Amino acid sequence: MSIVKPRTLSGFMELLPGKQAQFERMVEILRRTYGSYGFAALDTPVIEDAQILLAKGGGETEKQIYRFTKGDSDLALRFDLTVPLAKYVALHCNDLAFPFRRFQISKVYRGERAQRGRFREFYQADIDIIGDGQLDILNEAEIPAIIYKVFRGFGLTRFQIRVNNRKILNGFYAMLSLSEKSGEIMRTVDKLDKIGADKVRVCLTDDCGLTAAQADDILKFMAITGSNAQVVAALEGYAGRNEMFDQGLSELKAVTANLAAFGVPEANFAVDLTIARGLDYYTGTVYETTLLDHPEIGSVCSGGRYDDLAGYYIEKKLPGVGISIGLTRLFYVLDEQGLINPELPSAPADVLVLPMGDCAAAISLAEELRTSGLRVQLYAEQKKFKQKMAYADKLGVPFAVLLGEDEIAEGKCSVKNMRTGQQIKCTAAEAAAHIQATLNANAGAIILEK
Amino acid sequence: MSIVKPRTLSGFMELLPGKQAQFERMVEILRRTYGSYGFAALDTPVIEDAQILLAKGGGETEKQIYRFTKGDSDLALRFDLTVPLAKYVALHCNDLAFPFRRFQISKVYRGERAQRGRFREFYQADIDIIGDGQLDILNEAEIPAIIYKVFRGFGLTRFQIRVNNRKILNGFYAMLSLSEKSGEIMRTVDKLDKIGADKVRVCLTDDCGLTAAQADDILKFMAITGSNAQVVAALEGYAGRNEMFDQGLSELKAVTANLAAFGVPEANFAVDLTIARGLDYYTGTVYETTLLDHPEIGSVCSGGRYDDLAGYYIEKKLPGVGISIGLTRLFYVLDEQGLINPELPSAPADVLVLPMGDCAAAISLAEELRTSGLRVQLYAEQKKFKQKMAYADKLGVPFAVLLGEDEIAEGKCSVKNMRTGQQIKCTAAEAAAHIQATLNANAGAIILEK
Repeated sequence: MSIVKPRTLSGFMELLPGKQAQFERMVEILRRTYGSYGFAALDTPVIEDAQILLAKGGGETEKQIYRFTKGDSDLALRFDLTVPLAKYVALHCNDLAFPFRRFQISKVYRGERAQRGRFREFYQADIDIIGDGQLDILNEAEIPAIIYKVFRGFGLTRFQIRVNNRKILNGFYAMLSLSEKSGEIMRTVDKLDKIGADKVRVCLTDDCGLTAAQADDILKFMAITGSNAQVVAALEGYAGRNEMFDQGLSELKAVTANLAAFGVPEANFAVDLTIARGLDYYTGTVYETTLLDHPEIGSVCSGGRYDDLAGYYIEKKLPGVGISIGLTRLFYVLDEQGLINPELPSAPADVLVLPMGDCAAAISLAEELRTSGLRVQLYAEQKKFKQKMAYADKLGVPFAVLLGEDEIAEGKCSVKNMRTGQQIKCTAAEAAAHIQATLNANAGAIILEK
Repeated sequence: MSIVKPRTLSGFMELLPGKQAQFERMVEILRRTYGSYGFAALDTPVIEDAQILLAKGGGETEKQIYRFTKGDSDLALRFDLTVPLAKYVALHCNDLAFPFRRFQISKVYRGERAQRGRFREFYQADIDIIGDGQLDILNEAEIPAIIYKVFRGFGLTRFQIRVNNRKILNGFYAMLSLSEKSGEIMRTVDKLDKIGADKVRVCLTDDCGLTAAQADDILKFMAITGSNAQVVAALEGYAGRNEMFDQGLSELKAVTANLAAFGVPEANFAVDLTIARGLDYYTGTVYETTLLDHPEIGSVCSGGRYDDLAGYYIEKKLPGVGISIGLTRLFYVLDEQGLINPELPSAPADVLVLPMGDCAAAISLAEELRTSGLRVQLYAEQKKFKQKMAYADKLGVPFAVLLGEDEIAEGKCSVKNMRTGQQIKCTAAEAAAHIQATLNANAGAIILEK
């Protein structure tokens, strides 16, 4: 038989079982947390009609998209979860209750140039709340509260959800009579973290054609920092000059005030006027989330408020607010930096049952341990003891349970802690309790901070 | 803005939230059950190198496959989970512990002609156990035992796992000197259920060119039925004439004997000599699973033993045994027949908290209920009471919790059971306990039998 050399495409993450278990644990936290806030799980097709997926058209997206024909169908793989959501809501709007809250944790596809840490297939973990015609500002405070819960669920404390409002930015640029250049300016200001204020000033004057005074005004505005109360107080100084600015400020105040009510500590959120988010469709509150000890990772969770989700598909006005975690990249970066807690069990089983004599007894024992909630693998191969233990080692199971004729005669089994080497002889019920207790004691954060 | 009419491609399942919740519940049972037997969760890319995916080449598969180019890459979407598993194991074999047990519940793609109940994107829920060089027969008994657990987990009792062994069939055809025609004969015999013995006899003589005596021998063999002990006894009558037959019979006896040890009642499994499974690569035990009251659905879970998983990719001999559930089709058929239990909660939340006064109090209450393990949505919109209740109705939440100024003053909340209309006033802790108790009492089978 001729051999085809096996490989996985570059830009596609394929994990070994232990790493996959770590990844699944993060997904589980997301699923449980999103679910606990009453978001419906959604699952849309990976393939959509290309015309529908590209209704918005143009730009970088179109170049990156996986698009192909099958028969006479023009097809494409989804490149995010927002466009399919828009289609879904437009298509099923009569069957949905609004506000419609959904989460989706699914793969999306972008044929980017392959490079380290960039993926062509990657998971996004999204939540969105869609209103019919209107949507209360309270939702814009709840979204970051949920994200706070997610990151705490990962075991993190040193993270910050940064909040801004596009209306404040747009209103501010209107004050300076720079509305038409606001997009360009925002893209420039977005580089503040990377290139610093001096270079941004040069870009603003030379590339954007602003006067030195305008550039200074912008940099002074962007330099507003401090506690949330201090930032809001500084912003009050600009109030009364532009309606949109005032509305944005009022929204920002509502969001920050309610974030506290939602139990998000002030240490975990901050108003940051430099955040604009690239996407055109954000119209109000915008979010970014950074790991304080790892700013180089950039935003690990971003989103915001939009006024018109599905305008390409229906006349109905559907405002919403949502946020997205680029899960594959987040996992990759955390793993690269050694921040995924290696102490948490990543073996496929909690217990490996090793029959040393009668198989039927081992089958029953495995089943009894399973009934108590443990994940139990029965080792069925006829091998020497040493090989059996070597398998248990390679698998990384925390416990091996040995069942020989002696144990069977006594109605007991031998439980070996693979980490400590300690071995005890006890009944199946005692074994289950002992193993469960040891596993519980080993629980810890999924992501380490260091 | 020009409107693009939204649609979902034909042959792609896209569920409304309530149905999706039912689907997710089945996935959860699968994941938990597979996990409890020590199978590692795996997640391979949807897109693979077409040369690798089609290493086996030819046949119906190639016509159905979604294949396309991106840049100069020849790509294809996976059409099952077995070929990607073969690639995975071949690629990572040095990092895996053998026997390697994995489960994968993922979408696969086949561009079949669209027809009712046929899907182009569908979930398969697979388990496989892969050995390095050899794999004990006990694994072939464990696989159906796990499937038994899964279907019991769905709430079913009226199902049957049917077992056969390809060596028995191949050995039997060798006895009749029909080895070269065995593939053709098996495909014909496979139609017994559909077209009956008389028509199969005609096909065997006219199409396959068998003598009348050979056709009779085959039909007599295929007609062996009865209890598993009776079938095995009848098969013993053929023993001693062909080595492969004898080996198959010995394996079949081992599998049926151990199935009992694994706790599978005799009512839920049967030896069925008519089962051959179309795929060439099965070499020993084969399985099909039928819902006894719905034979028209056909096999809902099939698989078997194979001797060489990854021969297209490496020289290493990797025998295995696996089984696959076509989850999307199963769900579709069950739903069509009204067999998905509508009494189980399918709303995205257990509780909708309706603030009637101070929002901060409602936010805290929602969080307190969440802490007790409930899925809680806070209703944030400024609407009239009637509209709020209409939303709760449309959402289908089992409970609404109302919090007005009166309740806040008393330190209580009003809990309304949306199904019975009953309303009680109590503390948050009491509300959580009351709601949880009512939800627990409503637990039942996921799939109905009727």
